Amino acid sequence: MGDIGVGVIGTGFMGKAHAMAYRAAAGIFPGNLKPVLQTVADVDEAAADAAARQYGFRRAVTDWRALVADPAIAIVAITTPNMFHREMALAAIAAGKHVHCEKPLAPSVAEAHEMMEAAEAANVVTQVGYNYIKNPLLSLAREMIASGELGEITSFRGIHAEDFMCDPEVPYSWRLDPQGGGGAIADIGSHIIGLARFLIGPITEVNADLATVVKSRPVGPGAAERRLIEVDDIARLTVRFARGCGGTIEANWAATGRKMQLGFEISGTKGGLVFTQERLNELSYYKAGEDPRENGFRRIEAGPQHPPYRNFCVAPGHQLGFNDLKTIEVADFLSAIEGGVRRGPDFREAWEIQKVVDSAIASSKSRAWKEVA
Amino acid sequence: MGDIGVGVIGTGFMGKAHAMAYRAAAGIFPGNLKPVLQTVADVDEAAADAAARQYGFRRAVTDWRALVADPAIAIVAITTPNMFHREMALAAIAAGKHVHCEKPLAPSVAEAHEMMEAAEAANVVTQVGYNYIKNPLLSLAREMIASGELGEITSFRGIHAEDFMCDPEVPYSWRLDPQGGGGAIADIGSHIIGLARFLIGPITEVNADLATVVKSRPVGPGAAERRLIEVDDIARLTVRFARGCGGTIEANWAATGRKMQLGFEISGTKGGLVFTQERLNELSYYKAGEDPRENGFRRIEAGPQHPPYRNFCVAPGHQLGFNDLKTIEVADFLSAIEGGVRRGPDFREAWEIQKVVDSAIASSKSRAWKEVA
Amino acid sequence: MGDIGVGVIGTGFMGKAHAMAYRAAAGIFPGNLKPVLQTVADVDEAAADAAARQYGFRRAVTDWRALVADPAIAIVAITTPNMFHREMALAAIAAGKHVHCEKPLAPSVAEAHEMMEAAEAANVVTQVGYNYIKNPLLSLAREMIASGELGEITSFRGIHAEDFMCDPEVPYSWRLDPQGGGGAIADIGSHIIGLARFLIGPITEVNADLATVVKSRPVGPGAAERRLIEVDDIARLTVRFARGCGGTIEANWAATGRKMQLGFEISGTKGGLVFTQERLNELSYYKAGEDPRENGFRRIEAGPQHPPYRNFCVAPGHQLGFNDLKTIEVADFLSAIEGGVRRGPDFREAWEIQKVVDSAIASSKSRAWKEVA
Amino acid sequence: MGDIGVGVIGTGFMGKAHAMAYRAAAGIFPGNLKPVLQTVADVDEAAADAAARQYGFRRAVTDWRALVADPAIAIVAITTPNMFHREMALAAIAAGKHVHCEKPLAPSVAEAHEMMEAAEAANVVTQVGYNYIKNPLLSLAREMIASGELGEITSFRGIHAEDFMCDPEVPYSWRLDPQGGGGAIADIGSHIIGLARFLIGPITEVNADLATVVKSRPVGPGAAERRLIEVDDIARLTVRFARGCGGTIEANWAATGRKMQLGFEISGTKGGLVFTQERLNELSYYKAGEDPRENGFRRIEAGPQHPPYRNFCVAPGHQLGFNDLKTIEVADFLSAIEGGVRRGPDFREAWEIQKVVDSAIASSKSRAWKEVA
Repeated sequence: MGDIGVGVIGTGFMGKAHAMAYRAAAGIFPGNLKPVLQTVADVDEAAADAAARQYGFRRAVTDWRALVADPAIAIVAITTPNMFHREMALAAIAAGKHVHCEKPLAPSVAEAHEMMEAAEAANVVTQVGYNYIKNPLLSLAREMIASGELGEITSFRGIHAEDFMCDPEVPYSWRLDPQGGGGAIADIGSHIIGLARFLIGPITEVNADLATVVKSRPVGPGAAERRLIEVDDIARLTVRFARGCGGTIEANWAATGRKMQLGFEISGTKGGLVFTQERLNELSYYKAGEDPRENGFRRIEAGPQHPPYRNFCVAPGHQLGFNDLKTIEVADFLSAIEGGVRRGPDFREAWEIQKVVDSAIASSKSRAWKEVA
Repeated sequence: MGDIGVGVIGTGFMGKAHAMAYRAAAGIFPGNLKPVLQTVADVDEAAADAAARQYGFRRAVTDWRALVADPAIAIVAITTPNMFHREMALAAIAAGKHVHCEKPLAPSVAEAHEMMEAAEAANVVTQVGYNYIKNPLLSLAREMIASGELGEITSFRGIHAEDFMCDPEVPYSWRLDPQGGGGAIADIGSHIIGLARFLIGPITEVNADLATVVKSRPVGPGAAERRLIEVDDIARLTVRFARGCGGTIEANWAATGRKMQLGFEISGTKGGLVFTQERLNELSYYKAGEDPRENGFRRIEAGPQHPPYRNFCVAPGHQLGFNDLKTIEVADFLSAIEGGVRRGPDFREAWEIQKVVDSAIASSKSRAWKEVA
Repeated sequence: MGDIGVGVIGTGFMGKAHAMAYRAAAGIFPGNLKPVLQTVADVDEAAADAAARQYGFRRAVTDWRALVADPAIAIVAITTPNMFHREMALAAIAAGKHVHCEKPLAPSVAEAHEMMEAAEAANVVTQVGYNYIKNPLLSLAREMIASGELGEITSFRGIHAEDFMCDPEVPYSWRLDPQGGGGAIADIGSHIIGLARFLIGPITEVNADLATVVKSRPVGPGAAERRLIEVDDIARLTVRFARGCGGTIEANWAATGRKMQLGFEISGTKGGLVFTQERLNELSYYKAGEDPRENGFRRIEAGPQHPPYRNFCVAPGHQLGFNDLKTIEVADFLSAIEGGVRRGPDFREAWEIQKVVDSAIASSKSRAWKEVA
Repeated sequence: MGDIGVGVIGTGFMGKAHAMAYRAAAGIFPGNLKPVLQTVADVDEAAADAAARQYGFRRAVTDWRALVADPAIAIVAITTPNMFHREMALAAIAAGKHVHCEKPLAPSVAEAHEMMEAAEAANVVTQVGYNYIKNPLLSLAREMIASGELGEITSFRGIHAEDFMCDPEVPYSWRLDPQGGGGAIADIGSHIIGLARFLIGPITEVNADLATVVKSRPVGPGAAERRLIEVDDIARLTVRFARGCGGTIEANWAATGRKMQLGFEISGTKGGLVFTQERLNELSYYKAGEDPRENGFRRIEAGPQHPPYRNFCVAPGHQLGFNDLKTIEVADFLSAIEGGVRRGPDFREAWEIQKVVDSAIASSKSRAWKEVA
């Protein structure tokens, strides 16, 4: 097993998730590459130092450029707010690093495209943090669709709803900047768009209605001054897929009571599937044509028969958690770097997702159907 | 308790449901009017005779005009396919009868409007069979919204999905006639549109995408010849409500595995509600602002604290069934005839629903937002 | 269709349920016997009169003996507290009536035995109101067990839990009299015991632990004086079935939050079943030996493929309610009177259930296993 | 942060789980002790070498005594079959190591007692692998009970059911040896007994019925020769708790279709709780006394408000998995070694659990109530 040096930029929610996933991957997945936690970077020196100590990095830096320039590092993981992704990724690519970037890839299609082209030109491997699709049960769902087991797909109804932006006193931040996070459609909508593409394939047209529920927010934590909000809290999309069927996609970060309702229902002529991340270890499956006296949606529980669940646990029903999905993401990335299948989602896929996001915003503004170019 | 004569036209699924509901209503609800099952009409004489005998009508006729003309009858219930509703209802109204008509009221807005105007001019009481909204838990939901308990409503996400049209060998019928049943949007879409209006209020704009999944069907049962289908199997609507919020509505009668998924999720600034007719005796409610350590969606079970459940059963959790909803519909109608509150939905409301249906069809054809006139 | 006169004794919760079920039965089930609501009896004259008017009885009486003596009545339905069952049933049997009696049949095995013997000697048909087992999905469960579809049964885990006796201020009543209602084990325990017998067969041995949670209660509504409680609030039984397997049964009327948790889980070598009356239109079924990648408990929804659901509704997923179960009970009784299959539960079965109840009480007192004689 | 050397004996299911948990703990929990994976031991040299390489141990040995004797090791984790626990633990204790031992602690009360006494005499810290109780939501449940929020507890109904022993061709192994694993009551029953004790407190009396469903099994994998089975597949216990209430506990490893049904329902005079490991990130809570119109069981979803969930993820609803529970177990152990609260379960608690297991076996043999000495 060869060592491979990893540098992580950022020490927040995702910074920790990346660090722990790189730390766990080699133990869970017996691949050929063994990540070595080389360097963690954060503009806040204390945060960088604490992260290095806690997660086991050899070095902490405040300048991400030092991390990118380090020859001991072959993988650069970017977990900063997404307006920083482009600059960091391009520098890492230029330095010949493989790049693992959090989602959404960039605030705009143009930036995403530039990043994708740079990565492909440099022939580095890329990975974008759409971690939810790493769920073994979603791999099962994808296989059932791809193999024709569900018949012809006739409908996709997807949603990603949470309630973390319900409170009007949540202050303005980069997530609320049209050129930054880009609203619910970009922040969480990109997850369900990515999931739709993962399962059903390319989206060719979109008709969207974006709504801002909280019209203004404090300019900063506890501030009296308020700022008008330009991005959406709720995005409602009707879509057409390249395979011929239609569907709907909703993104809503003001969905009172919902913590992680990333879910879908898919109908096919031979079966149906229902899923929600709220119960990520379950997939409901209806198989058409069975004895009607005894048929119904089956609650499939994740188990070792659903790869790569077995890497985490040999017994069924023991359940994976969110951090395990991140570990699978890292393992897939390492495997691609080794020369294995590129399961993605890579920069190209993230660019495709971003195009749907941008098309939705444009559609909503023009109140008309919009082709995804 | 005064007797009131009832005539039912039609002896199919809904004919039986009406007969049984009129038979049960006075026993369950101690109002002042006691329905007397006077006459049942069916073009098939044997069916009419059998229905009269089984359900306890005094008389069976093959000519519905004889029923309408009968002075012993004060209530005419119309349960035939909807292309017959207009003629029957207008005749009944002209004869001064109160009219209970199955849904959708008519195949077009124009007909629905004519029926509504005739009924209002004649000052008869009308009732349309959108029975699902008679659920005590949906009355609770409506009260919670109307009272402000959920705060400002920010989102409605509704669906009515079943799978009875999945099979491509289900033959052509009036339900598939654009001038008859009018497709999924009219047949079952009208239920979820009516429910959205019942809970959230008027819909002012709609943007719809209608899809035909099964492109052709046998011209009749077992026929080799097939006919192209012009109506939708799936309708996907984005809507705007007069109260200011938006939402989505889906109708899908080719939803593999779904038997009665008439459901919604509503978000308000102070709470959220989730419901599906698949579990019609449960309403999930999230109350914002409670101790976060112990908060979550509550599974409210129907009980005597939810009127008029107590009329059916004094003990909680014993559950109402579909036919009980029909009995509540009849009781509401009788109460309105007596001079009580007109809970509806009446012909005016059914016309409003039909306008949304027609706007959705027009929107889909023009691929553009459409105002509900 | 021949008329058959019905007399109902009692106008409370169950009195109304019986009246409405007899009123509905002929319309829902096209059998040969058509119940005529002849007489209702209640010691409270106003209650009797109101019930007659509301439910459509021809006559109201205060003396149940007059009802029993009426030659126009062929069916006597007894819905009074169970210490009155014996006297009324014996009189009705002596008058040659078929007897429909609420559960439990009697406060003691001896009385139940006497009633059963009298009924069998007189060759009248009897029916006892264990209505929950009339659920079409429980008929399905029974067939799956009887046919061997579940393989050898290895375990039964049943419960009937409600919370209506949680409040220590619920006053003393006949339900709390050891010679009356007999506690949770008799009142609701008899339901789950009956259900266990219906599905799995005779219980041969029982080992029980009965507990009184609320030690004293007001002697009457609002009374300051309190009375010590001798009966159980919670009964926990371990049982052995004649077929060789074991199981547990719990009855608990102080189960905070539970409204109608009458449920079970059954394991067999070829499959498993899970049910709760809280979702009475669903049965969960696990079929062993299927492709493990896609297997799981199936949520079977009640539909017309589950007789006699179709009598209530031709469309699946529309759901039956509690009162519909009572209507099936009446239809089964009428069918037995006509000479059809005696589906019961009849007085003999109710006596068998009572024996298990009494054995449980005796076992708890002696703190030892007790054979069900 | 000081380093602390860890040695793990065994490389199977639990060996891997321990290794990964020790590897993750310092990153997830910023305590003062940082585990260093020093040595892994397995009688199979290849397995030991592979484990060392994959999980990152510095050394692999085939002789566990070498591991125990290593002065660089302060923590010995024992993950072998439970008949080896005693010898290994006593040696480790004698060497002054802190001992982390998989459950059940030993095949008999006597051995467990000896191990407990040795550990306490040596004043080493011990931890036993009852990992499920490390769930943040079960800590919440425990606090709600301990604080009186649920009122007086009146009932506990617990189960641990899986189906991994359903198949009669699963061969004989140490789990089926009365002096080894000890059957379902010991293997998985100990989990639900431990959970009952964790939540409700000491069990004072038990009345059990143990059943062997599969009467014989192959002597080894694929063997034609079969061996009679002496241990139970299903154990049904009625219990009394020291606090005064009663309950039931079931262990069943032949529960067709169940993968991880470790669950309970608890009733208290002020509230009720329902849980199953099948949905380990949810706890259902009914709070008595709320507005009955809107009350019902709440589905509490695990979030950062439930320590130590926040250590894994700052966002609610993202879910922990099985391996995360093991990481919490390790963190609790490290914290106790540092001198913090000893959350256990330690050897003393494991001995207490073993006493209940043994009392259940004795009770079943004598068919009588048995005090837990």
